[in-house]
Amino acid sequence: MASPPRPPPASSLAPIKVPMELHAQNREKLTHALRQHLAASSRPTHGFVLLQGGEERTRYCSDHVELFRQESYFAYLFGVKEPGFYGAIDVSSGKSTLFAPRLPADYAVWLGEIKPSSYFKEHYMVDMVFYVDEIAEVLDRQYGGPGKPLLFLLYGLNTDSNNFSKPAVLEVPLSRPSLQLFFYCFVGLWGPGMEKFDTDLDTLHPILTECRVIKSELEIALIQYANDISSEAHVEVMRKAKVGMKEYQLESIFLHHVYMYGGCRHCSYTCICATGENSAVLHYGHAAAPNDRTLKDGDMSLLDMGAEYHFYASDITCSFPVNGKFTVDQLLIYNAVLKAHNNVLSEMRPGVSWIDMHKLAERTILESLKAGGVILGDIDDMMAERFGAVFLPHGLGHLLGIDTHDPGGYMKGMEREKEPGLKALRTVRTLQEGMVITVEPGCYFIDALLVPVLENPNTSKYFNLNEISRLKGFGGVRIESDVLVTSQGCKNLTNCPRETWEIEAVMAGARWPLDDSASAASS
Amino acid sequence: MASPPRPPPASSLAPIKVPMELHAQNREKLTHALRQHLAASSRPTHGFVLLQGGEERTRYCSDHVELFRQESYFAYLFGVKEPGFYGAIDVSSGKSTLFAPRLPADYAVWLGEIKPSSYFKEHYMVDMVFYVDEIAEVLDRQYGGPGKPLLFLLYGLNTDSNNFSKPAVLEVPLSRPSLQLFFYCFVGLWGPGMEKFDTDLDTLHPILTECRVIKSELEIALIQYANDISSEAHVEVMRKAKVGMKEYQLESIFLHHVYMYGGCRHCSYTCICATGENSAVLHYGHAAAPNDRTLKDGDMSLLDMGAEYHFYASDITCSFPVNGKFTVDQLLIYNAVLKAHNNVLSEMRPGVSWIDMHKLAERTILESLKAGGVILGDIDDMMAERFGAVFLPHGLGHLLGIDTHDPGGYMKGMEREKEPGLKALRTVRTLQEGMVITVEPGCYFIDALLVPVLENPNTSKYFNLNEISRLKGFGGVRIESDVLVTSQGCKNLTNCPRETWEIEAVMAGARWPLDDSASAASS
Ligand SMILES: [Mn+2]
Ligand SMILES: [Mn+2]
Repeated sequence: MASPPRPPPASSLAPIKVPMELHAQNREKLTHALRQHLAASSRPTHGFVLLQGGEERTRYCSDHVELFRQESYFAYLFGVKEPGFYGAIDVSSGKSTLFAPRLPADYAVWLGEIKPSSYFKEHYMVDMVFYVDEIAEVLDRQYGGPGKPLLFLLYGLNTDSNNFSKPAVLEVPLSRPSLQLFFYCFVGLWGPGMEKFDTDLDTLHPILTECRVIKSELEIALIQYANDISSEAHVEVMRKAKVGMKEYQLESIFLHHVYMYGGCRHCSYTCICATGENSAVLHYGHAAAPNDRTLKDGDMSLLDMGAEYHFYASDITCSFPVNGKFTVDQLLIYNAVLKAHNNVLSEMRPGVSWIDMHKLAERTILESLKAGGVILGDIDDMMAERFGAVFLPHGLGHLLGIDTHDPGGYMKGMEREKEPGLKALRTVRTLQEGMVITVEPGCYFIDALLVPVLENPNTSKYFNLNEISRLKGFGGVRIESDVLVTSQGCKNLTNCPRETWEIEAVMAGARWPLDDSASAASS
Repeated sequence: MASPPRPPPASSLAPIKVPMELHAQNREKLTHALRQHLAASSRPTHGFVLLQGGEERTRYCSDHVELFRQESYFAYLFGVKEPGFYGAIDVSSGKSTLFAPRLPADYAVWLGEIKPSSYFKEHYMVDMVFYVDEIAEVLDRQYGGPGKPLLFLLYGLNTDSNNFSKPAVLEVPLSRPSLQLFFYCFVGLWGPGMEKFDTDLDTLHPILTECRVIKSELEIALIQYANDISSEAHVEVMRKAKVGMKEYQLESIFLHHVYMYGGCRHCSYTCICATGENSAVLHYGHAAAPNDRTLKDGDMSLLDMGAEYHFYASDITCSFPVNGKFTVDQLLIYNAVLKAHNNVLSEMRPGVSWIDMHKLAERTILESLKAGGVILGDIDDMMAERFGAVFLPHGLGHLLGIDTHDPGGYMKGMEREKEPGLKALRTVRTLQEGMVITVEPGCYFIDALLVPVLENPNTSKYFNLNEISRLKGFGGVRIESDVLVTSQGCKNLTNCPRETWEIEAVMAGARWPLDDSASAASS
């Protein structure tokens, strides 16, 4: 008996090698930028960059240890996956030192081999490795000069969270942040153990953040890989989504694909698996809205999911009808968003303002909604009144890297816009070669936004009221790709079915990418 | 053409309904116990239990929000999945109040529907719902008496983590723990906002912890379900494990199974997927040892994985040869552990000391090792010298509930033993009906433990040196089940293949539970 045809392999991908040169390059880039900055301001080009890596945390008072993921600035410079490390870079020589935690002997019984310093030196490609309790002594010896060595510590605002990064602290006996604050407030020093050093809290953060904004080739390769496996996982989800399933089952399929075949243990963010009316909730999927709705015939789904590989993120959104076939309304809204996405990609290049890209996406969506009869009136008037923010209340996209919302969106002197839509932008920068930024236009029918503009005669005039009342329960559509700015234009790192006929073909069982016959037949 | 036989369904299970009565019962149990305690010490039986639920946290300075999981004591009493709540119970009336966070208007755009108080009242079956900023006013009004109302706050030691639970605090303007400490140290009050109340930090913790130790029928049903889906997922992993795979692929199969078919978004703890020499690392699988080894022919695997369902844990370990066939050595070690596991289950009943159960497991393993020629000499001598702790360095098991290591293992007056093995016990209690406790004997060949005892003539005499040098790279075996203490004995809530021939049959493709023909043929 002939055996049945073998199913295609579950994935065409396998985890790629992680080059630790990436982090050595990141350190070199920082050292170079820091020296330039110091020289330009006539300051001595010596001192140490000192960063404290993250620590494992337990859940409240219990001994439940959360799976550790390294702090992102530390990951950028050192690539260390283990908790409890510090890292230093000598600004004048560029030499790097890791400080490993001194592990108790019974670590070997409970948690595994206690690796020697030589292991970390070789694995992480640093110049030296010592223990955390040796930091002050080692840096003082390396310095060797008169007076106190200068430490450049990381302290600055994250413009997405409004949180400040926490500068390294040495030997905090109670390991309590309160003690830290006490020292800072009353002793006037950044932390106990710091009295042997001069500290600079201002210089490092903006320079290191700026380093992270422009990606190296090695970084881009990891972001590309995270995109490859996540794109493939999105296709897998699309193929398996069926009416009657739960939203979280789509999440589970995605998580399994990127881990099983891609080696991605972490995702860049909690999966947003929104269907039906939930697709109008921009950040659905968190603990209070945990992807627990049942998929219904006629629903749109909006799936925003991305895997992380060796710290580097992907951030991808696909929207599709859960029954595999677009309705007329779904075609209208989806294609409005797709056109915005494509228009932005065709305009992106170095020198272009991201605010202009946001406005281009917004205008494109408004034009399509007008052509579809959903709204009426003059598009320029709507743009001037920021009416488009009703449908696209979030920013067009954000820098992407070791953080999903990578820092550096607003550097010193860049002001956040005040107007609807624009004020939500996570960056207002001009595009530069080497930036990776998400392009994620959306069009949503959100009650909380529609009700006030429908009640206001200045804005209600723009609506075709019949159409809008029909679309009120539509939910929303978002299409999100991760895009690299190149010297002449841009490159889309994401590879998912985007045209409606591509989506319908894949959901009907076609392979992705479509082969020529499928493409020819459908187009 | 006849269609091929349909594959069996991926799971025989589906998520069960969660009864919120469970938490109402938990509150009643606490109120009853608290009143009894107060009456017995001639104190007035009024006041309020006030607990603060957990908050969402971001990763370091970024806006990356970790997936929220409720603090366990709060989960026990209120079952609330959303962050930012407080809960109060009036000790005299037993009436319960939830305090919900007042959400900003744009929550509806970004995070979802702002649910009315009536929703929480009905869903969580409490008597009243107010906002967090109304706590002081509401409790004062409910109290109505002279003087200040008394608050019973949660403060006490977790004997697994050595951390203290954090008592509720009201209106901390900076939401900084440092401010809290400042108030406590310098103002002498537990927290700003607390000056309107008398506070009691001592009474609640031991009583509430003791409530958690004995499980209700509704609690047991959830632990049983978590066990059912996790047992099934372990079988799925057993069936799919193959030489050449990565350890994390076993983790991914497990996670997918419990989420996709069981609706379990959280696991009780980070999966331990240890193969080969890693199976001698008791808590393998964390970020510094991330399940990344390739499975080799001849390896044992030790997989400790359990799903959580509506806060309630499972904690299951299976050990099996990755190639599906036990070697002679693997049979010896595995059956030594299985016999210990089974002997303990046959002895467990109310009134039995857990220390005795640990010793029974240890003795059983030593006897098997002696019968197998691995060790030599008098078992009583070995027991007296605590020699068995070389092979079984961890405790036999722990209470299981909303935490994997559920609190209450050591109540007031119970001392931790000092001797090897026994000092690692997470509880030294006498078994009581309604306890759920893990039974997880293991036998490991851990270099860090073997080397010193081999170098010491007092202990090296017990070894057959040829055998032990051959077994040094063996790794380890653990068999872990979750066991309910019943009135007459105990009930194993876990259902995985345990006999070696059952494991081999399942790995060769047999269904689990084995049907009669498979059982008959193999036994
Ligand atoms: Mn995004
Ligand atoms: Mn356990």
